[in-house]
Amino acid sequence: MWLIHQFPLCPFSRKVRLLLGEKGVGYELVREHPWERRDEFVDLNPAGRTPVMVESEKNITLIDSVAICEYFEETVEQAPMISGTAINRAEIRRLTAWFDQQFYGAVVDPLMNERMLKRLVHRASPDTGALREAMKAANGMLDYADYLLDHRNWLAGATLSLADLTAAAHISVADYLGGIDWRAHEQTRNWYSGLKSRPSFRPMLAERMGVIAPPDDYDKVDF
Amino acid sequence: MWLIHQFPLCPFSRKVRLLLGEKGVGYELVREHPWERRDEFVDLNPAGRTPVMVESEKNITLIDSVAICEYFEETVEQAPMISGTAINRAEIRRLTAWFDQQFYGAVVDPLMNERMLKRLVHRASPDTGALREAMKAANGMLDYADYLLDHRNWLAGATLSLADLTAAAHISVADYLGGIDWRAHEQTRNWYSGLKSRPSFRPMLAERMGVIAPPDDYDKVDF
Repeated sequence: MWLIHQFPLCPFSRKVRLLLGEKGVGYELVREHPWERRDEFVDLNPAGRTPVMVESEKNITLIDSVAICEYFEETVEQAPMISGTAINRAEIRRLTAWFDQQFYGAVVDPLMNERMLKRLVHRASPDTGALREAMKAANGMLDYADYLLDHRNWLAGATLSLADLTAAAHISVADYLGGIDWRAHEQTRNWYSGLKSRPSFRPMLAERMGVIAPPDDYDKVDF
Repeated sequence: MWLIHQFPLCPFSRKVRLLLGEKGVGYELVREHPWERRDEFVDLNPAGRTPVMVESEKNITLIDSVAICEYFEETVEQAPMISGTAINRAEIRRLTAWFDQQFYGAVVDPLMNERMLKRLVHRASPDTGALREAMKAANGMLDYADYLLDHRNWLAGATLSLADLTAAAHISVADYLGGIDWRAHEQTRNWYSGLKSRPSFRPMLAERMGVIAPPDDYDKVDF
């Protein structure tokens, strides 16, 4: 059985879990708070980041969400998520990187710092300027997602792909932390509503991160 | 003909150029300073980052160094750089991500800010505390590379892979900016010396970034 070392609001772990859910690969969760830098965890992954996947019977350890997704894409045929021509696949990987780097860096990471780590670890108040900046960045980036979804059924083209799962993972964490204003993002809201109703997504929406409560509409398909 | 939009000290563009060099794919360079955020460049890549590759006759645009490397790995058989079993490939991608994220974030990005952007753009002096932190981080990360190279011929295993090209790209930029102290990193120095002598690497070592001069040993195979 695969174990995933993760915590409920890790967007990179959510991405991997969505992929595994779509592919029908079973797993169990192990809770890990990477900011605590536990010795055993840093020994497992010198980068000190979640997710890490371990299959101890086969002696396999997989590290980094991109490497993990490519691994399961290569080894599990069901529900291909990086498919099509080489150009299609490049577009899927471009948008995956865009959400993993730009959206995470400008939106999810500051929201996690201000609304999660400051509350759980530093017992400090969030910086309202940083929150405003993150929400402004989210708004601009959802404009770009709206633009893509005006021209395509899914973010990277005609079919559901890793780009959609990656985007939904990051957006869901930003949404949990109150960073998304859904007004004026009709296309992205419709797309996200469809993703929320998938069996791969439902369990994650029921999880909570300690005392931090999401907005009322966070887990609703109609929002 | 492929065009690469890049600048001489962009580590992600260096990674792509090393891969293309190993695979024997020809290209021409287009100089782009992403910090200037030229409208035409942001239209080409909304993420505003280098490298971007364009093949205008075939109407192809490739964005993001990971997506670009995977594209050429899939379309050009020569010199496979993400090869072996699915587990080998996961290890190559793990280390590629480690250098692209951890080494870049803790070492290359601060060095570029302090020694390149402050000089060329902001006309300010570097922050010596930030430089010291970056060099300390580089030292710790080269310890990890030493450890890997104690057990393997190349960073990710028995053969040259994208992990080595990615590591060499980031280390070469850090080295150009005076951020690497090679003492006490015998294994990584030997490995890097071998990479520097490859035909894919030589042209890059001859390039200079404006008024910023590298250390004397920067382009020497013996250093």
